[in-house]
Amino acid sequence: MARALSAVLFDLYGTLLDVHSVATRADQLFSGRGAALVQLWRDKQLEYSRLRTLSNRYVPFTQVVEDALQYACDALRLPLDAAGRGLLMHEFTQLAPFADAIPSLRRLAAVGLTAGVLTNGDPGQLEDALCGAGLEEYFDVLLSADQARAYKTAAAVYELGPLTLGHPAGELLLVSGNAWDAIGAKWYGYRTFWVNRSSAPLDRLGERPDGIGRSLEEAVDFALRLHGGGT
Amino acid sequence: MARALSAVLFDLYGTLLDVHSVATRADQLFSGRGAALVQLWRDKQLEYSRLRTLSNRYVPFTQVVEDALQYACDALRLPLDAAGRGLLMHEFTQLAPFADAIPSLRRLAAVGLTAGVLTNGDPGQLEDALCGAGLEEYFDVLLSADQARAYKTAAAVYELGPLTLGHPAGELLLVSGNAWDAIGAKWYGYRTFWVNRSSAPLDRLGERPDGIGRSLEEAVDFALRLHGGGT
Repeated sequence: MARALSAVLFDLYGTLLDVHSVATRADQLFSGRGAALVQLWRDKQLEYSRLRTLSNRYVPFTQVVEDALQYACDALRLPLDAAGRGLLMHEFTQLAPFADAIPSLRRLAAVGLTAGVLTNGDPGQLEDALCGAGLEEYFDVLLSADQARAYKTAAAVYELGPLTLGHPAGELLLVSGNAWDAIGAKWYGYRTFWVNRSSAPLDRLGERPDGIGRSLEEAVDFALRLHGGGT
Repeated sequence: MARALSAVLFDLYGTLLDVHSVATRADQLFSGRGAALVQLWRDKQLEYSRLRTLSNRYVPFTQVVEDALQYACDALRLPLDAAGRGLLMHEFTQLAPFADAIPSLRRLAAVGLTAGVLTNGDPGQLEDALCGAGLEEYFDVLLSADQARAYKTAAAVYELGPLTLGHPAGELLLVSGNAWDAIGAKWYGYRTFWVNRSSAPLDRLGERPDGIGRSLEEAVDFALRLHGGGT
């Protein structure tokens, strides 16, 4: 019989918060190029976080985000001055939550399930982001990769969940909008749910999340079934 | 005074071999989509190699390449049957060398500098690729990430150079067409040269290669200056 669920951990960027919500502001700075800029900015954040972890060259995610922004502007030949950089870096701390975030978190709270965040973001970003999005009241634990000085999908990051919560990874559900994160957590031993909002194909990494759906509401449906003792 | 140079190690994909040379064949299969397919295929190869290394889930690069191909076709909604997959996988073992590869390697051989390959490719790919490109006679050592069961930029991969050659990394020059590889090797302790054929901006990782140029010829110029005792 499968173990009951002890807690649900949510990824932040791309899961609770829409990283593409900054594109509107980026478009005001660089007319017509906002979406392309934000896509490359995000891709480079992930690439730099992984390379630095592979090579044991950790810097806080705020620095990774700023480095990635500068590269993306260089590559797209968009002139980024200090004011523009400050504006976009600030916008990144004020990302919009997905519309289903608060309703979903309220349903979890109603049944008394422990909820937390497990993110690459550093503690300052995490606090700013949750306050900016009005999500800070819904979480019992906030876990940042900064505590491990490494980024996902390193085991040291996923280990923060069991270490902090005092439950084995198999009793924790990791909900992520990033397939690679749901797979990385599954490799570590979590149960995982991939919120696949854009109906993307699943990454081919020889593993699949336990659950896949289109929304955070479906992720919470999945969590409540596990909590009730289902498999 | 700087140490003299003991050997030059070359990355394979994107450095000696043009990964985009498969686009023509891909275009015959998927008219007008070859370039997009090859770009995503290559991006996913790198992403999967890094995620698997971060999570200690090594599989040989042939598998990574095939997984990435399948994902890229899924994402671009290109129907890949067994024949198409076989054809493109075979083409990947027959990539064209850049036009300056053989002339540059001949110049190194003429001065008696030890030359080698250090690649993410597995031994079978490496052998097929060098024979297919007519490059096999130019190398004294062939080093594959498979020996470390990890991919770049993990230290275990770069460590193969000093371990095999018996010289410290500071006496080895790593030449790569991938900025992240030149930076990763530099982090490890190599001297490094980035062959920046497309005049791309340098990745913002807080480190820079020792040399940057547009061609393998310039990389060899750099190596010969170091070999002659310059800095």
